[in-house]
Amino acid sequence: MMQPAAVALGLRLRVLAEGPDVSAAQVITPAPVGAASDAEALVAFARECDAVTFDHEHVPTGLLAAMAEVTSVQPGAEALVHAQDKIVMREKLTALGVPCPRWARVASPEDVEGFAAGAGWPVVVKTPRGGYDGKGVLVVDSAADLRSGPAADVLAEWFARGELLAEERVPFTRELAALVARSPSGQAAAWPVVETVQRNSICHEVTAPAPNLSDDLAAEATDIALRIAGGLGVTGVLAVEMFEVERDGVVDVVVNELAMRPHNSGHWSIDGAVTSQFEQHLRAVLDLPLGSPEPRAPWTVMVNVLGPASIEARHADLYRSYLHVMAHDPGVKVHLYGKEQRPGRKLGHVTVYGSDLEQVRERARHAAAFIAGEIDE
Amino acid sequence: MMQPAAVALGLRLRVLAEGPDVSAAQVITPAPVGAASDAEALVAFARECDAVTFDHEHVPTGLLAAMAEVTSVQPGAEALVHAQDKIVMREKLTALGVPCPRWARVASPEDVEGFAAGAGWPVVVKTPRGGYDGKGVLVVDSAADLRSGPAADVLAEWFARGELLAEERVPFTRELAALVARSPSGQAAAWPVVETVQRNSICHEVTAPAPNLSDDLAAEATDIALRIAGGLGVTGVLAVEMFEVERDGVVDVVVNELAMRPHNSGHWSIDGAVTSQFEQHLRAVLDLPLGSPEPRAPWTVMVNVLGPASIEARHADLYRSYLHVMAHDPGVKVHLYGKEQRPGRKLGHVTVYGSDLEQVRERARHAAAFIAGEIDE
Ligand SMILES: Nc1ncnc2c1ncn2[C@@H]1O[C@H](COP(=O)(O)OP(=O)(O)O)[C@@H](O)[C@H]1O
Ligand SMILES: Nc1ncnc2c1ncn2[C@@H]1O[C@H](COP(=O)(O)OP(=O)(O)O)[C@@H](O)[C@H]1O
Ligand SMILES: [Mg+2]
Ligand SMILES: [Mg+2]
Repeated sequence: MMQPAAVALGLRLRVLAEGPDVSAAQVITPAPVGAASDAEALVAFARECDAVTFDHEHVPTGLLAAMAEVTSVQPGAEALVHAQDKIVMREKLTALGVPCPRWARVASPEDVEGFAAGAGWPVVVKTPRGGYDGKGVLVVDSAADLRSGPAADVLAEWFARGELLAEERVPFTRELAALVARSPSGQAAAWPVVETVQRNSICHEVTAPAPNLSDDLAAEATDIALRIAGGLGVTGVLAVEMFEVERDGVVDVVVNELAMRPHNSGHWSIDGAVTSQFEQHLRAVLDLPLGSPEPRAPWTVMVNVLGPASIEARHADLYRSYLHVMAHDPGVKVHLYGKEQRPGRKLGHVTVYGSDLEQVRERARHAAAFIAGEIDE
Repeated sequence: MMQPAAVALGLRLRVLAEGPDVSAAQVITPAPVGAASDAEALVAFARECDAVTFDHEHVPTGLLAAMAEVTSVQPGAEALVHAQDKIVMREKLTALGVPCPRWARVASPEDVEGFAAGAGWPVVVKTPRGGYDGKGVLVVDSAADLRSGPAADVLAEWFARGELLAEERVPFTRELAALVARSPSGQAAAWPVVETVQRNSICHEVTAPAPNLSDDLAAEATDIALRIAGGLGVTGVLAVEMFEVERDGVVDVVVNELAMRPHNSGHWSIDGAVTSQFEQHLRAVLDLPLGSPEPRAPWTVMVNVLGPASIEARHADLYRSYLHVMAHDPGVKVHLYGKEQRPGRKLGHVTVYGSDLEQVRERARHAAAFIAGEIDE
């Protein structure tokens, strides 16, 4: 999705692809193949580039340093670690005074129980590294569940690999995301705060701007994201996932986690903002002046097209189904990623914009559900 | 510029490139190299494709037929000839009852003089084939200029190669373009009629929609374009260049020429319409349902970035100059084509949209002029 922005700006993209058939390699060449953990491939690749950036955060710190010796790596390892490790992130945000859920480092089921004594049940336990789409997130309901049962089994496995992060389960009213971009020279730009809806911990729907968000709370959420971007020295796009909470009638936000790259919560900006998150990320990591993050319509709704519930329910032909969506609603913007269908996998997304939120949302939901084969009319 | 739309729709583009470094080959692979006149290269290429389309109209009819034997060629040769040959076009449009300038086929300077006896001086003489950006268009002011001088020399050369098209010089108030798309199954969609401004016969600026155009005349211009698309069996994007004329206080349009492909008069649609001309062209030639051609802002202005007046005035670095434009106006959309600078060559374009036409136009003009090195502040 970064290729269109690069084409327009006359920039040449290269991609280091995990395999010859991954989405990015289908549309960007040259695309040498190499894993994010393959030092030789990474450094050889970096040598050919004026700047290197990422579409996921899981590149080991040592390899980031090795690349940084031969080219500009954006964001840098010191910033990126906060999107790689949720414990490091919690420590830093707490130090910056950013509102977070109650949290603790835990090394054993006893530690979790101790944390719950203060924060209450249920407790959310997370692996600090490597999680995405809810993989690495476990809700533990009670002390009994720590001792036996499926949760206890998972925790035993996780603890064998190291410390974990425990968090209070935040009784959020909804989830929000504040998306900003920052360049090495410190210029920053913020898109409107969006509402995100997760299904089974997977981002499903994003509405921009977040409906019924007071100007004050929007400003606060944006300010938090900009403070994090500056405080951590982030370059490129930073997505700050947040929980909206209501306590004693006061609505507030606490930060869930960070992503340092174009993020699913910003896909709406491709069709919905003057500058998309992909164009902005390119501008930012190259230290070009940033573009306007202004929304282009009163409301923009993005809905993910997820893979079928089971392999058996797999669509014979995703492309056939989008014909009907196109014919049904000529204003829907369809984006498909050229990925093999797998249950729950993000295969694409649709975007709809306009001035009537209910209509826009209904159209986007219908289109995504139809393409995903969840409905057939 | 078609690549972003193809990426989003999950379609794989291939390009047959004139050389390894042309714009399209920089961003689309595979890009086998071959000329539009190379039968073997064309047919081998066509065999690998589900459908073949064009970014210029100058593919010989015989080669179109050869390709059509192995794949779907859109638009077909019978339609395309009307964008290849201005005499064939004039004959067909006249037969369809479409308003044209007075015109005649001419085979000699005497024929031109005979035509002028009825239509008056000056006369516009055009080569039927191969012209673009005013190359192949000659204004002859008088019978004397037919006999000696630079115009006479050019005409002698042109007549040696065959018949020419003579037209009255239309005293137009401005130039307009009506852009439509049509699919093989006959679905059609029309963008708003735009105003185009030519400088030295090269498209320079496009405003969408055309300011101060009456609803009636807009409807008439659109109707003409749709009638041509249907009458000629066009598939894909059709641009109908028109002159706006005022005769005895009545404002009307006459057709200048046709382009059967995404056209400079439609570049505004990339940032300015729900469906860009490039996405629509892909949908149309593949017979997918067409997208909404609705504009996204009250006004969109596109200005071309042209090469310098002379090679000596060549910009050392086009990319450096766009930094200033980006910093000056974060809402400008910059599009560069990755072409070598040559005098008068279209190197890119900028687009600005908004609700205040004067401001939008001023911003777009300033950005294009700055990038082109025509102004330096
Ligand atoms: N402390 C928490 N309280 C309540 N819900 C949570 C908490 N942490 C995570 N969640 C839920 O789980 C989802 C995934 O958790 P997250 O930490 O964002 O993991 P991932 O890295 O997989 O996105 C969140 O979007 C939210 O819906
Ligand atoms: N009959 C005409 N009367 C007045 N101006 C004309 C006429 N034909 C062409 N022109 C001018 O010359 C430009 C180029 O002519 P056109 O036929 O469109 O050639 P090209 O194929 O190079 O675009 C037009 O955009 C218009 O400004
Ligand atoms: Mg998350
Ligand atoms: Mg023309």
